[in-house]
Amino acid sequence: MSAVNASLKLPLRADLAGMEPYGAPQLDVAVTINVNENPYPVPEPVIEAITQAVREVAGGLNRYPDRDFPALRGALADYLAGESGVKVPPEWIWAANGSNEVMHHLFTAFGGPGHPALSSSPTYSMYPEYARNTLTELFDVPRREDFSVDVPALLAEVKRLRPALLVLASPNNPTGTHLPQDDIHEILAETRETGPDGAATVVVIDEAYGEFRRDGVPSALELLADNQHLVVSRTMSKAFAMAGLRLGYLAAHPEVATKLMIVRLPYHLSAVTQAAALAALSKADLLQAQVARMRVTRDHMVATLRGMGLTVAESDTNFVFFGKFKDRQKIWQDLLDRGVLIRSVGPDGWLRASVGTEEETERFLSALKEVI
Amino acid sequence: MSAVNASLKLPLRADLAGMEPYGAPQLDVAVTINVNENPYPVPEPVIEAITQAVREVAGGLNRYPDRDFPALRGALADYLAGESGVKVPPEWIWAANGSNEVMHHLFTAFGGPGHPALSSSPTYSMYPEYARNTLTELFDVPRREDFSVDVPALLAEVKRLRPALLVLASPNNPTGTHLPQDDIHEILAETRETGPDGAATVVVIDEAYGEFRRDGVPSALELLADNQHLVVSRTMSKAFAMAGLRLGYLAAHPEVATKLMIVRLPYHLSAVTQAAALAALSKADLLQAQVARMRVTRDHMVATLRGMGLTVAESDTNFVFFGKFKDRQKIWQDLLDRGVLIRSVGPDGWLRASVGTEEETERFLSALKEVI
Repeated sequence: MSAVNASLKLPLRADLAGMEPYGAPQLDVAVTINVNENPYPVPEPVIEAITQAVREVAGGLNRYPDRDFPALRGALADYLAGESGVKVPPEWIWAANGSNEVMHHLFTAFGGPGHPALSSSPTYSMYPEYARNTLTELFDVPRREDFSVDVPALLAEVKRLRPALLVLASPNNPTGTHLPQDDIHEILAETRETGPDGAATVVVIDEAYGEFRRDGVPSALELLADNQHLVVSRTMSKAFAMAGLRLGYLAAHPEVATKLMIVRLPYHLSAVTQAAALAALSKADLLQAQVARMRVTRDHMVATLRGMGLTVAESDTNFVFFGKFKDRQKIWQDLLDRGVLIRSVGPDGWLRASVGTEEETERFLSALKEVI
Repeated sequence: MSAVNASLKLPLRADLAGMEPYGAPQLDVAVTINVNENPYPVPEPVIEAITQAVREVAGGLNRYPDRDFPALRGALADYLAGESGVKVPPEWIWAANGSNEVMHHLFTAFGGPGHPALSSSPTYSMYPEYARNTLTELFDVPRREDFSVDVPALLAEVKRLRPALLVLASPNNPTGTHLPQDDIHEILAETRETGPDGAATVVVIDEAYGEFRRDGVPSALELLADNQHLVVSRTMSKAFAMAGLRLGYLAAHPEVATKLMIVRLPYHLSAVTQAAALAALSKADLLQAQVARMRVTRDHMVATLRGMGLTVAESDTNFVFFGKFKDRQKIWQDLLDRGVLIRSVGPDGWLRASVGTEEETERFLSALKEVI
């Protein structure tokens, strides 16, 4: 069977013509600090817990998984209570294969034609893909020079647009900056009836990097109780060192989960994923110790880069956004030539480097010193 | 935090208002033969293989999984070659979290407004949900009284509609019947330029139950080489006893996978899923022995039900579709009262029962004898 002679034309959606699949390069390089992964291998007790949990469910894989995964939702609620101090009941939790899929559920249920979404760039590069896939028109209110959200401009656009969804990453990717709680509070107060047909605008605070925030920076989870239109999105990819497991989740009023269940594909979360996630959550303390270590390294990176005369955005994440370079592509390539893969993303002149291990971080910093 | 006082209105898509989540009841009953699961527990060597495979990848879960999963695609291609005799190259394979998600990718890439889809009912109840989620208009050409597809009527509708997608389950759910290869051949010949804007209509033959087809019934895989617009969908849920793992896949010209990669969420298939699926595939022989056993039980069910004077559709699946009952709901409830859960689905008067273990099947058959 051969792939040549593709003479037929496939009926690709017109707006997808010529598009390329999303994706950072997956290159084999000594220091890979381009996609904000946790650099530490999964600790042995976590490996053991996951292995045993999977062994226990493997015999029953002939059956479909629990569609509503109450055990996992309970464990995620418990974890959030410990992490943020906010007690969220299990039915306020929803989960899917990565926060990508959680977001996709939100865009599918609340977006679509006539239900636009709004965001504030530079921000996570997948938002336009969720919108495109779900035929949701996505609008943008650019951030200020210092990457803060221009709340008055945003709210003006909300009034004009009547968006179904307002998606704000905090801490933000790729800038690393967080949105002050007062801003979120103000946004929530002003969006209770600004959606289509007098509905609320669903405000999604994407806290994928929430666990890396500096001391004193609160989580938007604190605002959940009073705001039925607030969704706080989280992931196990970063803080839990579980990017390979694909487990994202959200906390919101249970009416939100009820709506998402209409559009989720049944049995979307495999029994193996549920078991492995539960096992990782049971070892949260161990994994959170890595987070503490990465926050120290992150602060060291910020200080060192500033010491080199670079402009560095405040970081509440496990990566650092720095610049400005006349030719960032050359810096990126020069680092790659020295075995260090970072990411060229966001506004021109800036580069993003994830927190690596202590050794990887030193290799990055000394390679960068050579390069600039 | 409490769920009461939900005074805000959420901006749910208007066409989703009042809808309920999909799902067969997940009841705790002695004999559960309602969702076409493989009734046999996963054999010990398969459990062991999955456990070891997960242990091996668990240490690297801090990294994102391979987005394009070439190893799994290769193993699925090898498996198909052994099962059907058709050698499909790895790049002709695409996989996702259940064939649900594979189908969703197809509807997202090729469907949408102005790109209608066509099917032939009674058929799998998820097709309307894929269409609804992706804003694809779904049309129907009902099957004949004997559940065969009315090919002339279908092709007439294809000419009128110019659908982007034509989705036909073979063997079909819930009827159990297969589509003759000559029909598929004719449909493929007539759909090379019948899609939107002169594109082909993508013809999806959903072979979720393909491994259960009777001797002499060919797979549509045999038609792949000559038809770039043919997609054959398969799953590990049924024949592989892996409903809980969520692994569906398709075989098609590589141009199809290239298009699906545009709309798939990156890293949609977890490293754990990839590893567990590879492990199960390495034990395919063991799991296929269960399939052979279930086919024998299935033929026994068909013969016994006919012996009871019932009308039974020909079955090439791991379930049997039978009737006709004046009050099928009463039969369903009477069986449930006797600890046997089957499915009330499809045209009125008919019921569907999955192949259970030999013992479960006898319990079902004797309960049914009591009931009718």
